[in-house]
Amino acid sequence: MTDTCPVAFFVSDGTGITAETLGSTLLTQFPHQHFERHTVPFLTTADQAHQVAGRIDEVAATGRATVVFSTVVDPGLRGILEASTGFFVDLFGSHIHQLEAALHATANPQPGRAHGLGDALRYQMRMTAVEYAMEHDDGQSVRALERAQLILIAPSRCGKTPTSMYLALQHGIRTANFPLVDEDFEHRSLPGPIAPYLDKCFGLTSQPLRLSQVRQERRPGTVYASLSQCTWELRNAEEMYALNTIPHLNSAFMSVEEISATILQQMQL
Amino acid sequence: MTDTCPVAFFVSDGTGITAETLGSTLLTQFPHQHFERHTVPFLTTADQAHQVAGRIDEVAATGRATVVFSTVVDPGLRGILEASTGFFVDLFGSHIHQLEAALHATANPQPGRAHGLGDALRYQMRMTAVEYAMEHDDGQSVRALERAQLILIAPSRCGKTPTSMYLALQHGIRTANFPLVDEDFEHRSLPGPIAPYLDKCFGLTSQPLRLSQVRQERRPGTVYASLSQCTWELRNAEEMYALNTIPHLNSAFMSVEEISATILQQMQL
Repeated sequence: MTDTCPVAFFVSDGTGITAETLGSTLLTQFPHQHFERHTVPFLTTADQAHQVAGRIDEVAATGRATVVFSTVVDPGLRGILEASTGFFVDLFGSHIHQLEAALHATANPQPGRAHGLGDALRYQMRMTAVEYAMEHDDGQSVRALERAQLILIAPSRCGKTPTSMYLALQHGIRTANFPLVDEDFEHRSLPGPIAPYLDKCFGLTSQPLRLSQVRQERRPGTVYASLSQCTWELRNAEEMYALNTIPHLNSAFMSVEEISATILQQMQL
Repeated sequence: MTDTCPVAFFVSDGTGITAETLGSTLLTQFPHQHFERHTVPFLTTADQAHQVAGRIDEVAATGRATVVFSTVVDPGLRGILEASTGFFVDLFGSHIHQLEAALHATANPQPGRAHGLGDALRYQMRMTAVEYAMEHDDGQSVRALERAQLILIAPSRCGKTPTSMYLALQHGIRTANFPLVDEDFEHRSLPGPIAPYLDKCFGLTSQPLRLSQVRQERRPGTVYASLSQCTWELRNAEEMYALNTIPHLNSAFMSVEEISATILQQMQL
């Protein structure tokens, strides 16, 4: 990041999540540029809009490329921002008229609707799922496993916890996760409490060297982190998934978003 | 949801998150319509594109309004989808040329870059933050509190846990959360372990009736869930925030996304 790198503003009348998400996606297509980023959420008054337009003008006046990604709904506020000297990308206005045509309906413009409480039932589901995932992290509880929609299983440090949290928080999936340990591999059987719920199970694996690196960071120099132990656990886990026809994926070089999207698709959740 | 309601497809060469986020935001502007939703992630081959175009055609042939939100990067695949009879909203192509002009740079189109591992350092920060937030949920651990970037405090059930998880997972903020209990209020002082970190503290409050309802769901008929107890705790929490000049917000009617965006802004994280 330098004083001359381009600057991106993400401006929204709500949380700014939508503006950041699409804006950042577009910026990833310019991988050789670094961007200074500013998010401006909850912009709802003309005073605020003028103030932000002023900040944009100041940056643009220094000669730096200045891009404004906006999801502001109100045309008046949009006009104020658009009049600034930044390059205005109207993520909202560009598409809403297309949609009106497609749906033969008139939009009912309301700011900040996307990431508010919105659909109260769906929101409640997500919060309940977070609670469920917290309680059922790493096999801590076997209570109400029949209520799980998904049970992630894997050797330690293959990404069970962040994936469970992501699926619960973003998608409202009641996710339990369970570690596979030496004992399970020696018995060649799934942990007892989850055996009745085979159809809810999804397995994670990793790549031995990668797993060993991750474990070394946590517990350097232990058998637990050794390449031989990681290789052995992963081979056994894969055998167990195959034996029980449990769908699985290798999480070694995937983000939690990619792992989650793959699981949702494969498990048809 | 009926057999005649409009249908939205979210099609992506990556996780589908960007297409869903902006697509859903646009659909919120048509609050009187219900949409049947289909997400198609990881579309990367012409065969897959033809197959999805076929599904879109089938739906559109029934006379239902059919909208396709696409963030597919590859122009060839986009062309296949656009040739279907669905109404094609090109969230990617509509803006990338504008950006090339603004940045005086040529985009380097790469699919699925937005929610992959991407910036490895930033991704690692997020995963570390999730681990930190899990360990420091509900005052479970006071180890390494000096490493926290944020300490959320509140009476039970004001939203500490999901907010911590969201900030950790989405923003990589190492967040601890600590309950405020009767004892703290009687002593009129912050819990001992967090007192040295006053500048990292952010308080949540709620609305007494709302808090009582939330607690009743968990523990019906208890003193803990009674309106009088909730009123007392919230009044004391607010006094404590004021006395210690701790920034705070009322979470009663806000989503976890809104709470998080407000905290990020106020704490300048």
